[in-house]
Amino acid sequence: MALAPLSGTPRSTLTRKKDRAATDRTALYEILDEALVCHLGLVLDGAPVVLPTGYGRDGDLLYVHGSTGSGNMRAAATGLDVCVTVTLVDAVVYTRSINNHSLNYRSAVVHARAKPVTERAEKLHALRVLTDHLAPGSWEHARDVNEKELAAVAVLGLELTEASVKMRTGDAIDDPEDLETGTAWAGLLPVHTKFGVPVAASYVPSDRPVPDHILSRRAL
Amino acid sequence: MALAPLSGTPRSTLTRKKDRAATDRTALYEILDEALVCHLGLVLDGAPVVLPTGYGRDGDLLYVHGSTGSGNMRAAATGLDVCVTVTLVDAVVYTRSINNHSLNYRSAVVHARAKPVTERAEKLHALRVLTDHLAPGSWEHARDVNEKELAAVAVLGLELTEASVKMRTGDAIDDPEDLETGTAWAGLLPVHTKFGVPVAASYVPSDRPVPDHILSRRAL
Repeated sequence: MALAPLSGTPRSTLTRKKDRAATDRTALYEILDEALVCHLGLVLDGAPVVLPTGYGRDGDLLYVHGSTGSGNMRAAATGLDVCVTVTLVDAVVYTRSINNHSLNYRSAVVHARAKPVTERAEKLHALRVLTDHLAPGSWEHARDVNEKELAAVAVLGLELTEASVKMRTGDAIDDPEDLETGTAWAGLLPVHTKFGVPVAASYVPSDRPVPDHILSRRAL
Repeated sequence: MALAPLSGTPRSTLTRKKDRAATDRTALYEILDEALVCHLGLVLDGAPVVLPTGYGRDGDLLYVHGSTGSGNMRAAATGLDVCVTVTLVDAVVYTRSINNHSLNYRSAVVHARAKPVTERAEKLHALRVLTDHLAPGSWEHARDVNEKELAAVAVLGLELTEASVKMRTGDAIDDPEDLETGTAWAGLLPVHTKFGVPVAASYVPSDRPVPDHILSRRAL
């Protein structure tokens, strides 16, 4: 499948460290699909608000959801411009100079207008996409969403048309003078995010095995 | 030391799930001190922009930094309102109903006006705070910041006066009907973020040991 390149609007075009920009959709998808939470930014009363929230991706559509009782969700659902940012941290980069210390990371920044998802079938589909992202396998395994629950959740759809990807990968980099005369250690301290051992809820019988769709995430 | 409670301005007071709010500064400090990156939100041309960035905390002052060549940093340095959000993900919460699925997390949301840090001694202090956060021990171990490097970095100071903490901790929670009739597995899948094995840069002699200040982070 041919992928459209990421958009080149001014705010989604990196102005510096362009070597850290990725311009293909595959990189965008990979970052969005790997992280668990995004940071949703919106403007309320002229000031920025940034909130962590779950999300899910279906092709070039990103869904976020929240309670209909949330003021931020209600505000966003009026069609506000939002910015969704997802960041994965891969390593602390130690260098011989303080100044070159850095992080290896992969980040995606999406600019979009929030579109409320209210039609029943699309809303259910969005909840499935959100569930498949947070807890793959749960949509088939757990009890379905009922009408009351469906009414209490607000879902927003964001089109992935204006987005940028930025990352730093690879080795530590020092200035030539530090390579010649420096003695400090330099290198990467990897940062790993992994799933641990599942812990059953108090109300789950102790002989109930952990389902494979949960256990298998540990190998990721 | 007596800690001032977190502020209760409307935007930093949770309107729902108040049981997830923490109102003491200790919780705020712990979250800020544990995470590696924050998400910095600002308003540019009326639209929200959310960027991942490093930071450091010194008492009730948060520092963020970036290149003086960054348009976002230059904009923020004009005294813009910013929102800095830090999120730690602790577990995926599986429940018997789709609807009660959640994440265990700890998040801090800080609202502040960005104040540029330009005075030399304070700027150097801020860089030390930022370094101590990203790479504790490096300030003593690595080559000092020189004047050229100092001039090329922009530092912002944000006062931790208006902030909120929100978290979900503990066991899965299901509705009474699902406790009675449900059979799906429920519980926590922990998410662990840990440091891996350090990898020396290509230009570091192979017999150079990894310093203790880096190795010791692995035990955290």
